[in-house]
Amino acid sequence: MTRVLITGAAGMIGARLARRLIAGGVIAGRPVTAMLATDVVASDLPGAAFPVIAEAADISDPATAMRLAAFRADVVFHLAAIVSGEAEADLDKGYRINLDGTRQLLDALRHAGVQPRFVFASSIAVFGGPFPDIIPDDFSPQPLTSYGMQKLAGELLVSDLSRRGLIDGVALRLPTICVRPGLPNKAASGFFSGIIREPLAGKTALLPVPDGTVHTHASPRSAIGFLLHAAALDTGKLGPRRAVTLPGVAVSVGEQIEALRRVAGDAAVARITRAPDAMVARIVSGWPTRFEARRARALGFEAENDFDAIIRAHLEDEHGGVVPA
Amino acid sequence: MTRVLITGAAGMIGARLARRLIAGGVIAGRPVTAMLATDVVASDLPGAAFPVIAEAADISDPATAMRLAAFRADVVFHLAAIVSGEAEADLDKGYRINLDGTRQLLDALRHAGVQPRFVFASSIAVFGGPFPDIIPDDFSPQPLTSYGMQKLAGELLVSDLSRRGLIDGVALRLPTICVRPGLPNKAASGFFSGIIREPLAGKTALLPVPDGTVHTHASPRSAIGFLLHAAALDTGKLGPRRAVTLPGVAVSVGEQIEALRRVAGDAAVARITRAPDAMVARIVSGWPTRFEARRARALGFEAENDFDAIIRAHLEDEHGGVVPA
Repeated sequence: MTRVLITGAAGMIGARLARRLIAGGVIAGRPVTAMLATDVVASDLPGAAFPVIAEAADISDPATAMRLAAFRADVVFHLAAIVSGEAEADLDKGYRINLDGTRQLLDALRHAGVQPRFVFASSIAVFGGPFPDIIPDDFSPQPLTSYGMQKLAGELLVSDLSRRGLIDGVALRLPTICVRPGLPNKAASGFFSGIIREPLAGKTALLPVPDGTVHTHASPRSAIGFLLHAAALDTGKLGPRRAVTLPGVAVSVGEQIEALRRVAGDAAVARITRAPDAMVARIVSGWPTRFEARRARALGFEAENDFDAIIRAHLEDEHGGVVPA
Repeated sequence: MTRVLITGAAGMIGARLARRLIAGGVIAGRPVTAMLATDVVASDLPGAAFPVIAEAADISDPATAMRLAAFRADVVFHLAAIVSGEAEADLDKGYRINLDGTRQLLDALRHAGVQPRFVFASSIAVFGGPFPDIIPDDFSPQPLTSYGMQKLAGELLVSDLSRRGLIDGVALRLPTICVRPGLPNKAASGFFSGIIREPLAGKTALLPVPDGTVHTHASPRSAIGFLLHAAALDTGKLGPRRAVTLPGVAVSVGEQIEALRRVAGDAAVARITRAPDAMVARIVSGWPTRFEARRARALGFEAENDFDAIIRAHLEDEHGGVVPA
């Protein structure tokens, strides 16, 4: 008897999570008995062995929060969010969706007397520079974007309400997800995926930053694994601080390229064109690079061990495990 | 031409700030030209050389925020808050006043196009244990009370909106204010003031914790000084992180008592009765003790140098500078 609510269910991660649960039918070792998947557009989901409701809803509308709470979920994956760039460009929208949306959903659950495992998708954007070489778990989060601020406020809500026993929350500080499938986007971080995804699809990709640029990545597959592990976690081990900085693979862009060469050969690498972009380089230079993530590893959160594995995961998930000709 | 808005203006600090501004007529080196003082009850303020409005208002009502924004203040002192114990006992009220109230006031200012110096009264309650012996400025705030969480969320709003140039904010992490004038209250921290104030008023005081208990204090006078200094501060020196952990006098209860003996003699000290209270001792043991506060000192925030000065400030402000017979 496990009822699952997913917000942001039409997003890259949300849709994969929903499909994984539909295919497996199990969460935290128990059968899924019903799923409510919501986003600004209704998710297109396959048939399941249990009732699945996919609906379009505005998470910033208090009436939506009350309706979602009435579903009485045992596990909530709260993934709905305005992404970093948009939250910076549209301040009202970012606060409305990322902060008020989270606040209202938690309020509605509380007023409905629903006390679920609440898995919140936070982000390494809660951290702002200057950074040490490797960010330890106790590094003070001081965001330098509105998105990071909103995610941190969400973490604080999750920890406070968990401390009070009103939810049983886990806030996951996700690293950059790579290789993102789909079309290239305009996110400043897009090239990290683009330089792998596009060459593997036989297309060219531009690299706007120096080869020495270091960043931490986890595959979409690992992201789903993080979420499912959080749903099953013994939260007694977390104590009152419910935010966890997750592990990933820290590599330089040059190391990403050499991994691509090992997995897919010189022809793939030849499709990458260096096109330095000072603005992108400046934005990326303000991002954290490596994380210690000791606490997450001790709690059993697992990412890939190297970037080759991230590329192979992408090939398996998007290309049937074969390097395209 | 400086218009000043004070929320929480009927509180111990707010009322003293309002009276100080009325008496001096100057803020940040410029004349005060108008003051709006608001709280849940209207403040009782003396006549001033400039228009003073004292009004009762519910800060958690969005209509209040819009009305306050319409005052078009150049300097806002946002002191209104539900205190720690009440915010823990009444979750809805604490979130409504401490979080929504701050959010709505900032929203209303933004939508009215008002970009004031915004001085926010935060608290050392943003910190939760375990603590190092001396808390450095970069110690990660991880609150363990709803009040601390709400204050930290307020700091994040102030920093984010300041970074975006929408306000020019300073969030002050105030230490415990001692000696609090007035009647004894039921706050767990009440005895820190009580063991000084009551003996000086010829009354007995109970001491519920061991003499070795260390805590950091600043006088009401220093608190007003912090607020006025924040109003005048060159915020260019703050950068994007607008929260400042303030200095204070870190002393053990035993040192407080010896200071009382030096200032007021053995007769005053004899009015303190040791009455160990395990529950109070447990609560207090979860509080931070000493702060480095280097950044605040470098920015020119000044507290007393020793606890004797704190007692003398109390005598001057509440007893005409004389040790009562």
